[in-house]
Formats: sequence, C-alpha cells, structure tokens
Amino acid sequence: METLAHVGEFGMIRRIRTLLQERGCRDADLIVGAGDDTAAMTPRRGHDLLVTCDVMVEGRHFLREIMNPVQVGRRAMTMNISDIGAMGGTPRWALVSLGLEGDAAMEEVLELYMGFLEALNPLGAVIAGGNISRSGGPAFIDVTLIGEVERDRMVRRSGARPGDAILVSGWPGQAAAGLDILTGTANEEDAPEARHLIEAYRSPAHRALEGGAVAGTGLANAMIDISDGLPGDLAHICEESGVGAELHEEALPVSASLRWAARRRELDPSSLVMRDSDDYELIVTCAPMHAEALKAAVARVSDVPLTRIGWITDVVDRLDLVRGDGARSALKPRGWDHFSEPGKRD
Amino acid sequence: METLAHVGEFGMIRRIRTLLQERGCRDADLIVGAGDDTAAMTPRRGHDLLVTCDVMVEGRHFLREIMNPVQVGRRAMTMNISDIGAMGGTPRWALVSLGLEGDAAMEEVLELYMGFLEALNPLGAVIAGGNISRSGGPAFIDVTLIGEVERDRMVRRSGARPGDAILVSGWPGQAAAGLDILTGTANEEDAPEARHLIEAYRSPAHRALEGGAVAGTGLANAMIDISDGLPGDLAHICEESGVGAELHEEALPVSASLRWAARRRELDPSSLVMRDSDDYELIVTCAPMHAEALKAAVARVSDVPLTRIGWITDVVDRLDLVRGDGARSALKPRGWDHFSEPGKRD
Repeated sequence: METLAHVGEFGMIRRIRTLLQERGCRDADLIVGAGDDTAAMTPRRGHDLLVTCDVMVEGRHFLREIMNPVQVGRRAMTMNISDIGAMGGTPRWALVSLGLEGDAAMEEVLELYMGFLEALNPLGAVIAGGNISRSGGPAFIDVTLIGEVERDRMVRRSGARPGDAILVSGWPGQAAAGLDILTGTANEEDAPEARHLIEAYRSPAHRALEGGAVAGTGLANAMIDISDGLPGDLAHICEESGVGAELHEEALPVSASLRWAARRRELDPSSLVMRDSDDYELIVTCAPMHAEALKAAVARVSDVPLTRIGWITDVVDRLDLVRGDGARSALKPRGWDHFSEPGKRD
Repeated sequence: METLAHVGEFGMIRRIRTLLQERGCRDADLIVGAGDDTAAMTPRRGHDLLVTCDVMVEGRHFLREIMNPVQVGRRAMTMNISDIGAMGGTPRWALVSLGLEGDAAMEEVLELYMGFLEALNPLGAVIAGGNISRSGGPAFIDVTLIGEVERDRMVRRSGARPGDAILVSGWPGQAAAGLDILTGTANEEDAPEARHLIEAYRSPAHRALEGGAVAGTGLANAMIDISDGLPGDLAHICEESGVGAELHEEALPVSASLRWAARRRELDPSSLVMRDSDDYELIVTCAPMHAEALKAAVARVSDVPLTRIGWITDVVDRLDLVRGDGARSALKPRGWDHFSEPGKRD
C-alpha cells in the first residue's frame, strides 16, 4: 500500500493533480491552478467575492469508522458550499489544506478528493490549489471556498426585521438522528427509515441552488445555513439583526423518517428537529407577504420545501418556543450567551 | 489563565474580533468580515485574484520553545504574503483556521493574531474570517491569503527561457543558520552575528514589495519564492518552464553573518546558502539585458539587493553548480525526481 511516508508530499500532490485534470471541471476563469506560487483567477464582472473556510478534524468532526473517505470529502466541501449558498452566491474555487499522518494511504487521499469533486462538479466549481502536511496527530481537512454573488444580491444575517416570517428549508435533524444510529446510541435495526437517516448523515446535501434562488428574488431579509442547530443559527440571525424570534413547535417540518425515529425513541419530534445536526439547511426571513414568492422561487430549482416555522419579534435577546397549546418557553441555544455580553454588537 | 476550554470557540472568536477591530486595518472593499456565513469583498477592477494557503503544524513547522506566539503568527502570515509577492501581487484578505488544544491560552491566541497583524498591517491587508477547532493533537495554523495583481502583470514560474539571467533577492540561508543556533546543533555563543541569524529565523521578511516592483517592470520571465531551498525552487522554475539551469557558486550572495557561521562550522558558505531555509527570498529570471533594470526597480522600493547567480540553460532536467575553477556538479534538490516521472508536465 502506498502511503504519504512512501510517496512524500510532492508525490502525493502529483497524483492529486492528475486526478483533478481527469475528473474535475474545466474553468476558463482559472488562469493558474496548482503548480505556481499561488492560484490565479479572473473574477466575474459585476460580482462580489464570498470567501469561507471550515475545518474538519478526525475524531471530532468525522469518524473513519462510520464514513468512508469519499463521504468525508463530500461533507468537507458541502459544508463550505452551504456557507456560500447561504449568502446567495455560487461556489467557484476551492483550496484544500490536508494534515495527514505518515501512514495515510494514497488511495484514501484520492478517494477524499473524489468526494470533493462529487460536491464541486455539479456546480462547475474547481479545486484551484492547496497543500499537504503531516499533522502529527489526528488528520484535518481545511477547505477554503471562494464564490461569487451578483452585486447587491447578497443576503446577510443582519437584515431580519420584527414581523418577518421565518422559513426553513428541507428537514433539519435527520443527519443527527442518522449519526445516533451509526454510533449505536440509537439501537435501531436496518429499517428503511434508519437507512434514510444514515444517508442524510453520510451524504448531506447543501442548499446552494435554493439559496441562490432566494437571493435572486431580492425579497429575503436575512439568510443563514444551519451548522450550530436550528435555534443556534436562528440566534445568530437575531444577534446580528438586533431582534428576537419565536418558533412554533407545531410548524416545524418533521420528515417521516425523523417521526419514526422519535416514536421509537419516545422523544418529541421537535426536539430532534432542533438539535445540532449536520444537515446544512437554510433559515430565511422575509416580510410575510413575500413568503409564497420565496417558496415558489425555490420550487423552480428544487424539490426541497421551504416551511414557515415562526416569526421575528422585536423582543431583543429572546428566542421562544411556542407550543400547540400556546405555552411559551425560552430556548437557550449554544452561543446564545453572546447576548449578555457588553460590546457584542460589532 | 483563560483557555479555549474555559471560554469556548465562540468566546475566543469574540475576543479575536475585538482585537481585529482595535488593531487591524480598515478596508473599504471588505463588505462583510467575520460574523456572517462568509466574508464578502469587492474585487478591484482590472485585476486578477491570487489565492494561496499554507499550513504550519506545531512540532513540524514551528517549535514553541524557540518562537513566541507573535513570531509564529508573523511567520505564518509572512510565508503566505511571500507567495502572493512571488506572483507580483498585493495581499488583501486573509482567512485563518486554527486547530488548538483545549488548554490553549486565550492570551497566546491573541498574541498569535498580533503576529498576523504585524505582517498584514504595513500592507493594508486585513483578516476577513476564519474558524477555531480543537486539533486533538499538535496545534495547526492554516492561513488562506487572497491578493490581487494588475491584469497581465502576473509573473509565473513557467516563463523562464534558456539564456535568462537568474537573480536572487537578499541573503538566503540565514534563517536556517539561525535555527541551528536555536536548536543547539550549532553551539555558538551570543555573538552579534548569531543574534542576527536568530532574528532572520524568528522574524523573516517577505519580499512582496520587491516582487511587486519586479512585476511592475514587465521585464521578468519567471519568479518564485524560496520555500524548498534555493536549488529546490529553482528546480520548480525549470520544471514548469521546461529548461535547465546552472548556478555559479562564487556568485551566490553570502551575508557577513552567514560567512561567520560557515567559518565557525568549517563549512562551505555556499552550502549554507543553498540549504532549506525559511527566508522567503525571491528567484527571478529575465533576459540578461534587463537584469540591471530589474535591480534598479527593486532598489527604488527596498534596500534588499538582487544578485545574479547563474543562467537558465536549454539542458532540460539538469541543474548544475559551477565552481570557481569551472568544475561542474549536478544538484539534486528535494522534489527534483519530478523530472524522471512520466506525465509530469501538466
């Protein structure tokens, strides 16, 4: 078996370059890819740049035992694509820093790159550069992704207004329920629902097309992708917009598989929807009168629904869950302590 | 002492944002910095983008025992600035992924960021985003740096032509000699020369201004920054340009401090110049008749000299060192095996 220790960083990079040439997209705007001091590209006229980076550390953000290298690569790229999509933009160019152990197998590194390409190719985005190092510990994958958005079409976190409808895409919570099954904390047999949830964890989708459609309407006031849990990311919108929010428990979208999991585990389905879960769905806010237009715009590019799940309020520092009987309880998502700190609204 | 485990990723990021606001530059082209799904910026008209990323892993690329966090941060940013400079560009926006252990001290992370700013501020470049994770092992610092270059002014590795003069900036090899002293493999007392070499290691300079001046003349055929040793990076130019090269030992620039170190260690000064050394000097090639114009252009922005050290040849796959007596020996830098591999010229 060829390993990093055998072929060296240079050898590995050569093999990766060949893979990218054979399996990656072509991009006429990429002037220089790998093989120079930097990558170089021509930005599209009338567009602004969007740049994000996210790192995945083995043992913390992914486990080899339950994901193969293709799935790990696809997830690492998907989470970054999701961020670009949540601004309303289009991913263009990725750079990848890999930290590997000496015994990392060439074959698995190439599979990891195949996972990157599976996420990038449908969007016509390309890998423009990167580097490989020994990590001296757990492996890490740091992806920087550059996208573009038409000038003045960007949708930020900070634009939510009291009275806005809160919409969410798809079916949040499925990935976390799938992870439970994979890690054995939910001991469920090989039911179709279980397989569906596992797939939601192993091969999560991004909502970049949906985010682009939302931005294209010019009707959304705020947008974010979910990476800290639905309440956590709604809290980020509230914090940046200086507003509060209420979520309606009965309105939360619960997929059939998630309802099945909730029943078996004797849990509230809504608690599964609101957990930390690597689904990369979008939260969007807009004036209530525009909600249907947003749903229609998304429906033109995607089968994934937008569901109205609550309202933005003017009660700053407060995120409430409203139950079917009208009972109200305060949600305290992780990171919500921002609110209590002086000087936070930068 | 506050640590990552105490304040959490969110808490640490808040403190970093405050530091950046207080001590970083302002950038009117940065539309969105930290605090949204992505950073967003308006690219300059008539310019292309340059993007590079480089990672530093503790224990492999830096040792806490011999560098403080400010120095580590400055080096991490400097090596990326150097890459942008070697294309003839101007650094604009950095993103930083940090992998830290739970006991990482808040204070030291802020010092690391001060090091980033010490490198970026003189250039008016800013930190536009990033993230923090637990590394589960040695700390790592992955910097992505985006720069801009005037369209058609970029200087690539691949343009060297047989007959070109090879120029090098500054005094390669000083950083490696300084590292020897710090790690005790060279047991030299606290002489001024030793302090000078140590400083060259701890606070290396980039040559971004010099690279910009070179590119501005339109007279350079190829440029690269030295990060794999002088012969190694000259080999990269040769490989990408399909040429060979000869270096003239007597022409290699040897600083007074390096000459002192060579004498004490009973070594050839040229062997110290040609080692792997984190100096981030530039190698430039140009038609011989333009060498003086390039030197003059650099002299207008910098005290660092350009020195002619050899010629590009048409003997593909061959990198020779020519001694004062005319004796010729083949250099075999790390990575030079590219040449022998089929399908390498991608």
